Amino acid sequence: MKEKLSIIKIGGNIIEDETSLQAFLKLFANLEGKKILVHGGGKRATHIASKLGIESQMVNGRRITDAETLEVITMVYGGLVNKNVVAKLQALNTNAIGLTGADINSIQSVKRPVKDIDFGFVGDVESVAHDSIDKLIQAGFTPVFCAISHDGNGQLLNTNADTITSQVAIGMSKLYDTSIYYCFELNGVLEDINDKNSVVKHIDNSLYQDLLAKGIIADGMLPKLENCFAALKNGVSTINMGNTEMLTQENDNFTKITL
Amino acid sequence: MKEKLSIIKIGGNIIEDETSLQAFLKLFANLEGKKILVHGGGKRATHIASKLGIESQMVNGRRITDAETLEVITMVYGGLVNKNVVAKLQALNTNAIGLTGADINSIQSVKRPVKDIDFGFVGDVESVAHDSIDKLIQAGFTPVFCAISHDGNGQLLNTNADTITSQVAIGMSKLYDTSIYYCFELNGVLEDINDKNSVVKHIDNSLYQDLLAKGIIADGMLPKLENCFAALKNGVSTINMGNTEMLTQENDNFTKITL
Repeated sequence: MKEKLSIIKIGGNIIEDETSLQAFLKLFANLEGKKILVHGGGKRATHIASKLGIESQMVNGRRITDAETLEVITMVYGGLVNKNVVAKLQALNTNAIGLTGADINSIQSVKRPVKDIDFGFVGDVESVAHDSIDKLIQAGFTPVFCAISHDGNGQLLNTNADTITSQVAIGMSKLYDTSIYYCFELNGVLEDINDKNSVVKHIDNSLYQDLLAKGIIADGMLPKLENCFAALKNGVSTINMGNTEMLTQENDNFTKITL
Repeated sequence: MKEKLSIIKIGGNIIEDETSLQAFLKLFANLEGKKILVHGGGKRATHIASKLGIESQMVNGRRITDAETLEVITMVYGGLVNKNVVAKLQALNTNAIGLTGADINSIQSVKRPVKDIDFGFVGDVESVAHDSIDKLIQAGFTPVFCAISHDGNGQLLNTNADTITSQVAIGMSKLYDTSIYYCFELNGVLEDINDKNSVVKHIDNSLYQDLLAKGIIADGMLPKLENCFAALKNGVSTINMGNTEMLTQENDNFTKITL
């Protein structure tokens, strides 16, 4: 039996609100067992970029990471957000260590090839150094990843936080019985998008296909769930989606996803 | 016999110039044995602060770190500079890990008490977690510290990079035969400030007292050397001051300081 490892991902809505962040960090600090935190950056980077006079370039509704935007992301995700989260976790007796994918060469990626759109300095994950990450965990430290990877040739790359989460989880599942907790603003996958209490408590692959056919899973949820099943097929044990309260154990009102 | 450990500190003039930084990082990567890098931030933080409309508050010629300035320092030192240095070292096959004092609770400090001047969010170092830092070194990682510490209660604090260097060195000297290399723009301590080749090759405590009496050590060099002798009295073996070329071993034109 492999030891359990929990990987928790929080998004911008928690990061940006001081009260939500502090409440979440308490839940995270109290979570038993070995764990890893992954955070996105939210609107703070956009806000600081605009203050610095850097306009967000969008092509077909998707953000382009030019050199200046990458600098802002490195400052905000890797510096401001990551190091404040680490300091707050230390105050909660969690011996955190803040990381980008460049640190201990933990997440190596390749700059996304230019096809129709040049996304700029965006990385697609190629490898996760699970043994190096485990050395930190074995030393008693709690890794806190921001959404930045590197190409191994000195270039940092902006990388989607959900992708970082699932790739780190796939890597760590070689060593641990690994579960992902995606914390977001909904209570879970909803059967009726207008009813926040219509949480589908358990989705397995056959229900997933069923929900897909019925059109219940659509829009933003579609890539998220595709990503989940890819992770499950590559070694991750369980994926949980819901609000941060799912970390309390007393709350079972969230979506559990298994193969 | 303790194993050797080298702690190298570079200042803003190297950080700010892409060519100098790359040249230095090659020397650092090639340096044999266990090592730690400490970097300052230089004028980049001031530059970005002014772009963000944050004015540097000065009192009696000394900078005050208000909340906004601390945010910029956290972004620039902890994010932009630190993570780019880490990524560049990875490209040079050095398995670097970027740290503030909050990470693994490595450097805890206390907010400087208000006497005549309120310096704001500035920390005076109280303790260095040498055992935790050593876990990283033993795992084969090379720590890269920026000039930020924390108070253990969730607050990051701006801390002088020379102080971080000497305090980390004092801490690590409990485990290692520790040497500091302060890289700066001069070739070393100069007997004649107008002659860049008048390097005093070796200073011990008795020569130090002699040079002090003659007024050869003055101005900016005075606190630097006071700091050096404090470190030597607290366990550090040797302190070297000079330009980055002193790391090549072929160059002996720098100042070596011992008790």
